[in-house]
Amino acid sequence: MKTKIIRTSRAPWDSNWKADSLLIYDRYLLKVPGFRGWLKRFPASYGVKAGEELKDISAFPGHLSRISRLTSEMASRRMTILVAGGGSVGDFGGFVASIYKRGVRLVHLPTTWLAAIDSSHGGKTALNVEGAKNQIGTFYPASEVYLVKPFLMAQPPERAVEATGEALKMMILKGSAFFPPRIFTKDPSEALWTALPKLIQGKMSIVEKDPTETSGFRHLLNLGHTMGHVFEAELKMPHGLSVTYGLIFALIYSRSRRDCSEKDLAAIFSHPAWRMFLPSALHLRSLSIPPSRIRTLLLKDKKRTSRQLLRFIFVRKMGKPFIREIGVDEILDEVARQKRLLKVVYG
Amino acid sequence: MKTKIIRTSRAPWDSNWKADSLLIYDRYLLKVPGFRGWLKRFPASYGVKAGEELKDISAFPGHLSRISRLTSEMASRRMTILVAGGGSVGDFGGFVASIYKRGVRLVHLPTTWLAAIDSSHGGKTALNVEGAKNQIGTFYPASEVYLVKPFLMAQPPERAVEATGEALKMMILKGSAFFPPRIFTKDPSEALWTALPKLIQGKMSIVEKDPTETSGFRHLLNLGHTMGHVFEAELKMPHGLSVTYGLIFALIYSRSRRDCSEKDLAAIFSHPAWRMFLPSALHLRSLSIPPSRIRTLLLKDKKRTSRQLLRFIFVRKMGKPFIREIGVDEILDEVARQKRLLKVVYG
Repeated sequence: MKTKIIRTSRAPWDSNWKADSLLIYDRYLLKVPGFRGWLKRFPASYGVKAGEELKDISAFPGHLSRISRLTSEMASRRMTILVAGGGSVGDFGGFVASIYKRGVRLVHLPTTWLAAIDSSHGGKTALNVEGAKNQIGTFYPASEVYLVKPFLMAQPPERAVEATGEALKMMILKGSAFFPPRIFTKDPSEALWTALPKLIQGKMSIVEKDPTETSGFRHLLNLGHTMGHVFEAELKMPHGLSVTYGLIFALIYSRSRRDCSEKDLAAIFSHPAWRMFLPSALHLRSLSIPPSRIRTLLLKDKKRTSRQLLRFIFVRKMGKPFIREIGVDEILDEVARQKRLLKVVYG
Repeated sequence: MKTKIIRTSRAPWDSNWKADSLLIYDRYLLKVPGFRGWLKRFPASYGVKAGEELKDISAFPGHLSRISRLTSEMASRRMTILVAGGGSVGDFGGFVASIYKRGVRLVHLPTTWLAAIDSSHGGKTALNVEGAKNQIGTFYPASEVYLVKPFLMAQPPERAVEATGEALKMMILKGSAFFPPRIFTKDPSEALWTALPKLIQGKMSIVEKDPTETSGFRHLLNLGHTMGHVFEAELKMPHGLSVTYGLIFALIYSRSRRDCSEKDLAAIFSHPAWRMFLPSALHLRSLSIPPSRIRTLLLKDKKRTSRQLLRFIFVRKMGKPFIREIGVDEILDEVARQKRLLKVVYG
C-alpha cells in the first residue's frame, strides 16, 4: 500500500474527518492554540504522555482496555486511528492501529521533525519489552501522513537542530540533492520544512525496495545509528544528536578503512549544517564512554547477525553507502583510534 | 506468502529443526509419550496452558518478557517460532511470532482437529481485550503447517465429533467433494484425517481471495458462526458443536426465507455426519436462550456493520453460500420461529 503524503501550511482544524475516528494524541498538544476545539470534533480521543514509558509493553493492556471502551460503538471496517505526536506516540499509535481488530486505517500527523522526516514514514511500529527498545512491532504503513506546518513550527528551534542529523544522513545515503546546502539558511526549521518532500522521497525510495527488512537493503537507513544508539542510551543525548555523532563516527571509520577518499569525505563535510555540531565537547565525550559499556550496548543491537558480528553501514562517497559485517572488537578499536585522533585535533 | 502444508503419519521427533527456534507448546503435550525428549532438542521452549486466559491481553506482557529472556541469544533474522497446540495456543503463538522483532518465521503444529482443519490455516492470530474475543490480532500466515497424525489421534474421540461441524461447514460452502459422505465411516477421527487435505484446500481457496478480510469474501467462512458464537458464549458449548447448531440455524433460516429449496436443503442434510447432532435436546436448548441475551451477544459480533445490522451467511444450495445484511430483530424473530417449529417436531 502506498502512503499518501499531504503537506499543508494550514492547521488541520477545518479538515473533515470521518465519523468513525479515534484520535491518539500527545497531551502536550493541548497547549497548542486551537487544538482543544479540534479534539471535540472526534467521536473518540485518547491523550498520552510521549516517551519510552508509553511504549513499554507492561502499560499496554491498560491502554488497550481504555481504547477498546472508547471505540466500542465504532464499526471496525470503517474505523480510522489518527495519531498526532512524535516518534514514541507514532510507534505506539501505529502499533495499536496495526493490531486493533487485526488492523484499521492509520493516519499519521507527525508533530516533531524527527517524526516528520523519519519515523512516520516507512511503516515501522514498535513497543519495548523489559527495557529492550522496539522488541515487538509490525510493518504497517499509514494510509496518509499529514505534514502540518503549524504543528512542526510549534516546536522549540533546538528540535530542528537535533533533527538535522537525520537530514544529513539522507544526504549521505542518497546524494546532496536530498538536502541541498543552499536551503540551509539561518533558520534550521525553515530548512527542514523546505527539504521535507525530498527527505521523505529519499527514505521511501529505500523502504520500497525492502519494506519488511527481508533483503537487508533497508538496513542502509541505519547509517549512523549503530554508535548513535550507544550514545543515546549511555549519554541520554537526544536521538537526532546521537545519530549526528554516529554519522561522524561512521564517516571517519569509512575513511580509516580506506573505503572513502579524503576528497569524498571533504565533500560530505562541506555541508554547512555540520557546523552546528563540530567542533564540540560532546563529540569527544561520546567517544569517552568506557569500552565495556559500548560492548554491552552494541551486543543489544537488534541488527546483530551473530554473537559478535554487527552489520555496520560504511560510506564510499556521497550517495554510496554499503553494509559490511564487522566484529564488536573492531568497532571498539576504532572508537579508541578516533578518540586519540580527536584529542590531537581538539587539544 | 504461500503456506506449505506437510501431512505426516510419523511423530516429528526425528525432524531436524533449525538452531534458532523457540517452541511454544500446550503443556498438555507433556503427557504425550516422546514429547519431553523432543522438547530437549530445542534451544528454547515455552509451555503454556491452553484456553481463553492465555489469550487475555492482561497476561501478555508477562509472557512476552519470559519469551524475550528465553530468546535473547537468538538472531532475529534466522529465528523460528514453532507453535504446537490447539486454537488458543495457535492464536497466541501466531500473534507472538507476528510481532516479535516485527515478525519471525512461524510454523504451526496443530494438535486439535479444529486447529488442523481451521484455525492454523489462513493466517489469523488474536488476543482478547476485557473479555472481548479476538479484539486484537494480525494476519500472519505460517510458513509451514505440520499435520501430525499421532498428535491429532492423541485427542479423545469426542473432539473429532465436535470438529465435524467445521467439516460440514466446508462441505456446504464448497460442495460435497470437500467432505464426501462415503469417507464418513464409523470413526469420525479417521474420517477427518482422510478429509483434511480437501478441507484445508477448501478453506485456503476462500482465504486466498481475501486474505485480510477487505473485500468481505472471506466472511463466507463465518457460515454458522453468528449464532454459533452466541451458543458458545451462553451455553459454554464447545466451539465445533456450537458451530454445528449455528449451521443448522442458518440452513433452516435460508429455507424459511426461500433462499434455498426443500430439495437442496434435503441434499445438504443427507450427509450421515448430521446424525451425530440431530435430533438432540441441545438443539432445542440452544434456541431457548432469552432473546435479550441473544441480542446482547449478537451486538458484540465483530462482523457487525452498524449498530443493528449484521452480515449473516445464507445458503442457496450446496456450494452456494451468500452474504446478506440483516437486522438483529429479524434474527430474534427467526429464533422464535425455529423454536416453535422444533417444539412441534420434537414434541
